Amino acid sequence: MLVIKIGGGAAIGAGGYTNFASDLATISEPFVLVHGGNAEFSELSRALGMPPRMITSQSGRITRYTDAATMDAMLMAYCGKVNKRLVATLRAHGVNAVGLSAIDGGIATGRRKPVLRGEEDGKPKVLRDDHAGTLEQVDATLVRLLMANGYQPVLTPPALAEDGVPINVDGDKLALELAIALGADGMLFFSDTPGLLADRHDESSLIRTIDALQPEAALAAAAGRMVVKVEAALGAIERGVGQVVFSDGRAEQPVTRALAGEGTVVRAGA
Amino acid sequence: MLVIKIGGGAAIGAGGYTNFASDLATISEPFVLVHGGNAEFSELSRALGMPPRMITSQSGRITRYTDAATMDAMLMAYCGKVNKRLVATLRAHGVNAVGLSAIDGGIATGRRKPVLRGEEDGKPKVLRDDHAGTLEQVDATLVRLLMANGYQPVLTPPALAEDGVPINVDGDKLALELAIALGADGMLFFSDTPGLLADRHDESSLIRTIDALQPEAALAAAAGRMVVKVEAALGAIERGVGQVVFSDGRAEQPVTRALAGEGTVVRAGA
Repeated sequence: MLVIKIGGGAAIGAGGYTNFASDLATISEPFVLVHGGNAEFSELSRALGMPPRMITSQSGRITRYTDAATMDAMLMAYCGKVNKRLVATLRAHGVNAVGLSAIDGGIATGRRKPVLRGEEDGKPKVLRDDHAGTLEQVDATLVRLLMANGYQPVLTPPALAEDGVPINVDGDKLALELAIALGADGMLFFSDTPGLLADRHDESSLIRTIDALQPEAALAAAAGRMVVKVEAALGAIERGVGQVVFSDGRAEQPVTRALAGEGTVVRAGA
Repeated sequence: MLVIKIGGGAAIGAGGYTNFASDLATISEPFVLVHGGNAEFSELSRALGMPPRMITSQSGRITRYTDAATMDAMLMAYCGKVNKRLVATLRAHGVNAVGLSAIDGGIATGRRKPVLRGEEDGKPKVLRDDHAGTLEQVDATLVRLLMANGYQPVLTPPALAEDGVPINVDGDKLALELAIALGADGMLFFSDTPGLLADRHDESSLIRTIDALQPEAALAAAAGRMVVKVEAALGAIERGVGQVVFSDGRAEQPVTRALAGEGTVVRAGA
């Protein structure tokens, strides 16, 4: 069983959906798809006159401030446009897809952190009514029920907080916790790069393998967002996922390529 | 088993979701919810610079022209904002809701009619690439699976055409075909009126009962959109649904009121 995460970058657009759908139609292994929607979310927010507001925390972490209207835009972009266009494309290719947010059926719940502190454009800010939070629990009951009955779940953030408010949670983490809960054999992460790069400006600097038992070299070479991804992959393998592949979502047969080891393969004793 | 349709009118907004959620949490009968989203759809379209384009057919039927960008807005409003806000509110009130579009799991499929002919602002028009169609088949397999496992499905248009394109189908008809497929005991239709009115400008002209065996008087009194609703209700009862109630979605306990017979009750031998 595979958990496949498709990033929400701009390069994996409508044409990308068709590539994934025609490729996934040939895969015999059962899978769960988790997708992002960040490019669509940002485009919609801008069109609605709400450009992204990025807040940098003291530790240097950059977060998008999500007030109630921005959460509506997130729901529209992730759960509306991206989820349903992807499901429609998959179904047109013969994949029995069912699109859900992590809110539905209690798939993912978390803790809301309504106050966001940090710097915006270099100025200290305290922003209230933030709709973001930390993923705390993944319940795979509904996902298992669907898969046992021949459906392929297609999931997306947001999750639900205890107070009934949808919260923006990290899609990679959602995929990861789901893979662990389901005991997935493998995870495939697709974004608009060939895999993990030693130099993020140079696509030829692809790191082909990372041995989860000796990750120091890879972690030393990694920077920024990549550190988070490597640590997540290491955590997944430690918690029972067979292997994790970071691969190119812009390819024509992205899943077939990733399963053939194109990209960065993380496993124990690689 | 009940099929409950909540109209997408402006008056049943966020406050309405809370009324429905707290009321539905007290209902012991299993139910499927079908909702619209027309007010949100129109508001989003206008905000995105795509005001609704209404086309009047030769027979006088008014249809909204739905090009690809307008379908994206429909997906965002219906499947994104309305569906997920409603599901989040229901879950916060203890209802085990799962939100789906009729695209998901092949719930509803139809035939696309890509060419729309008629008059726009009094001028003859032929508009191509319309994303509208006729609902042809409802497959309740996924809905039944969810209900048998303790979930309450929350459904919304659009449906999927054979060519893999999402199509705008009538939400009332979706609810109706679902009720027939599921053998529902009752259907409740909520909109922002007290029920079916003899004079649509006068809320005190409520028609309290319609005998499905002798509907002539009601049909004679009905006008416009109301004729369609009465005919749909009569069709449902003829095809095995126990009773149909048209009731006020703006009420504090809308479901309890409708089940107590407040509104227009349609049944055989009323």
